Parts: sequence; C-alpha cells; structure tokens
Amino acid sequence: MRLRNKPWAKEKLLNYPQFVVHHPETWKEKWHDLFGNNHPIHIEIGTGKGRFITEMAKANPEINYIGIEAYTSVIVSALDRAIEAEVPNLKLLNMNAQKLIDVFGPGEIDRLYLNFSDPWPKNKHEKRRLTYKSFLDMYAKVLVSGGELHFKTDNQALFEYSLISFSEYGLKLKYISLDLHNSDFQGNIMTEYEEKFSQKGNRIYRCEVQFPTISK
Amino acid sequence: MRLRNKPWAKEKLLNYPQFVVHHPETWKEKWHDLFGNNHPIHIEIGTGKGRFITEMAKANPEINYIGIEAYTSVIVSALDRAIEAEVPNLKLLNMNAQKLIDVFGPGEIDRLYLNFSDPWPKNKHEKRRLTYKSFLDMYAKVLVSGGELHFKTDNQALFEYSLISFSEYGLKLKYISLDLHNSDFQGNIMTEYEEKFSQKGNRIYRCEVQFPTISK
Repeated sequence: MRLRNKPWAKEKLLNYPQFVVHHPETWKEKWHDLFGNNHPIHIEIGTGKGRFITEMAKANPEINYIGIEAYTSVIVSALDRAIEAEVPNLKLLNMNAQKLIDVFGPGEIDRLYLNFSDPWPKNKHEKRRLTYKSFLDMYAKVLVSGGELHFKTDNQALFEYSLISFSEYGLKLKYISLDLHNSDFQGNIMTEYEEKFSQKGNRIYRCEVQFPTISK
Repeated sequence: MRLRNKPWAKEKLLNYPQFVVHHPETWKEKWHDLFGNNHPIHIEIGTGKGRFITEMAKANPEINYIGIEAYTSVIVSALDRAIEAEVPNLKLLNMNAQKLIDVFGPGEIDRLYLNFSDPWPKNKHEKRRLTYKSFLDMYAKVLVSGGELHFKTDNQALFEYSLISFSEYGLKLKYISLDLHNSDFQGNIMTEYEEKFSQKGNRIYRCEVQFPTISK
C-alpha cells in the first residue's frame, strides 16, 4: 500500500485514548481489565485501514478485538472507522508485531488473524514474513493452549510458503479454502485489499491452523 | 473414466508375467528379490493407463516402480506401455488398494504416488477417498520410516480435504504448489488425465507429505 505522510496522524491517535492504547506494554497480562470483562481476545496483526477488525467487532460484541498496525498514517484510518462504529470491544495499537511478547502475557490471546500480510517475495526477506517461524514462536507464547491462527491472502506464493511453515511448526490445519469467494464459507468479512484484488479476479486463499494443546 | 468391457484383457495380463505380477501377496517382503536389486521401491496407487509410472521408470532406472490399478480393462493399457518401453524396473499389479498390507511388508515401500485419484465428492463416500485416514494407516504400515507420499489432482475439494487429512494424521508438508503448470517445479511427468484437464484450463494442485520418522 502506498503510504502518505500524515504529520497530524500521531496527534489524532493521542486524542482518542478510548480506542488507541498508548504504552500498551503497561497492560501486559491485564487486557481483560482494560476491556472490563473476561471475553475472549482476538487480535489482528497488520490491521491496515481497519475494515475487517471494525466489522468483526460490530458483528461479535462478545469478543474483544485488538488491531495492531505499525504505520501511523494507516492506522489513523482504522481509528476513523472505530470512532464511527462506536464499539466498546475494539482497541487499536500503533506498534510493530515484533513487540507482541512485550505487550501480551502467556495465553492472553485466544485467536490471531493475519489478513493479506506483506508477502516479502524475495528469499532474503523470508524472516520478515508474518508466518515465518520466529513469528510463530511469538504467537505460540501469547496464544492460549489450542489457540487458532486464521490467515487469508491473495498471494499464492505466500500461502504456499505459510502452509509449509505451519506444518513444519507442528500446527494442525483445521480449515482450508483455495478459492474463498467461490466456497461455501459463511460470514466472510472482506478487508479493503481483499475487495479490490478479488474484483481484479485474484483468488482468495484462506486457512485456519491450531497451535498445540498443552498445559502451560 | 469410462470403462469399456474388455473380455480379453484378463488373458492378456496373464501372458506378460514379466510385467504383471500375479498373486502379488506371495512376494510380500520379497519385492527386492523380484526386482533383483536393492533399489528403492516407489508405487503408484490408481495407475490408470500407465503413462506416469512408465515414464518415471524410463527416466529413473535406479528406482523400482510398481503401478497398482483395480480395473483390468484399464491396466491393460498400462501393460501396452510397459511392453513398448521394455523397462526392467516396472511391475504392474491388478488389484484393489485395500490389499496393500497383504502385499507389502512393513517399510518395504520408499515412496507412494497418488495421481488424480477419484474425488468421491459425496460426504457419505469419504472413506473411499485414497487420502482418508484408513488409507493413510495402510500407507504408514508399508512405507519406510520418513517415507513420502506425492499427490496431485485437479480437484480442488479433494486437495483441500487431503491437506486437512494429512495434517490431522501428523504428516509434514514438504512441498506444495497450487498451480503446478505455472510453477518452477522441474521434471513433472503428466498423466493422461492431467494433460486433458489442464488443457481445459483446470489448475493442477500438487503436494509432498512425509510420514513420521520412527524406529520400527
């Protein structure tokens, strides 16, 4: 996605603390306190302009959602959606995914979404892909035992790579669609990117994998 | 595939014992004796008209190949190819896959190919799919520790089903292509079916999975 410089974005994020959580590491192991309930917590890494996470929060009030996005100039659009939706079960974090284990305690997250993550097609950038094993290590630490990762993309090479990475890591494949928009999957919420690229004729790939069920 | 009744086929198979092995259960744990060497043994279940297995045998003289096909009227075409190719490293078995463990001993097979297997699309026929868990149980018994299953199909639903079945069974995904004919995979040998249906524009899916490495 092309990034526009938005010098005012940082200040706007500060003006909406009910949606944008600053210094998120101070809430480590206390996220249920922040939400004020014990509902499951689902996070999206790379939440972009926020359509997916906001629609999910509206559709599922009994789930707490946290959208994580590194780019200030992008997450500010997600904030606009959150303000408009006025949902109490959605928080946004302007941070890099690398900080995940500083921000969430062991087993604090129930489910993790990756949608149309950057494919980093060059081999030398493999370690930056959000389905690389070092990221799976981080997800394993913050996810509950038996927690799930739900992933969709239109990038065939990233999807192939990720299926192998998941398998190597010992994750169980619970669901897969190799053509989501022509499948019988119900309740799909499209991201901005998904709508644009499926209209161009790209296939959408989707899978759900489960982390091992272990006593922590 | 449409099956034509060929009353002469059975007799023809009997006339070529150098290619068609009769009473294959008598060779259990002795297949290397039959081939007269200790080369690895690769089998194809559902070998059809035999193009794949014959071309593989020609291309890889250091591997022993066994093609298994239940339909007499179909395997007779594979026999024609074998006769023409005159390869010493190819045998054909006219039998049902259910007999696999009566015919091969533990760890006797090094690799197993499934190509364009019958998708059995109805849920009630799940148990007939060659990637159903009861078949994986049989493959696990005859395959060497860490042995591989190589699978290709143009049937999206069967491929999705099989990936989940493999994962549930604990097999590791080592390779996957979601569009084989537009991938950089080298040395693909097409089956008769593959050529026909890829020309119609069907995508070809392919994967390699590995059985657990265990001491037997």
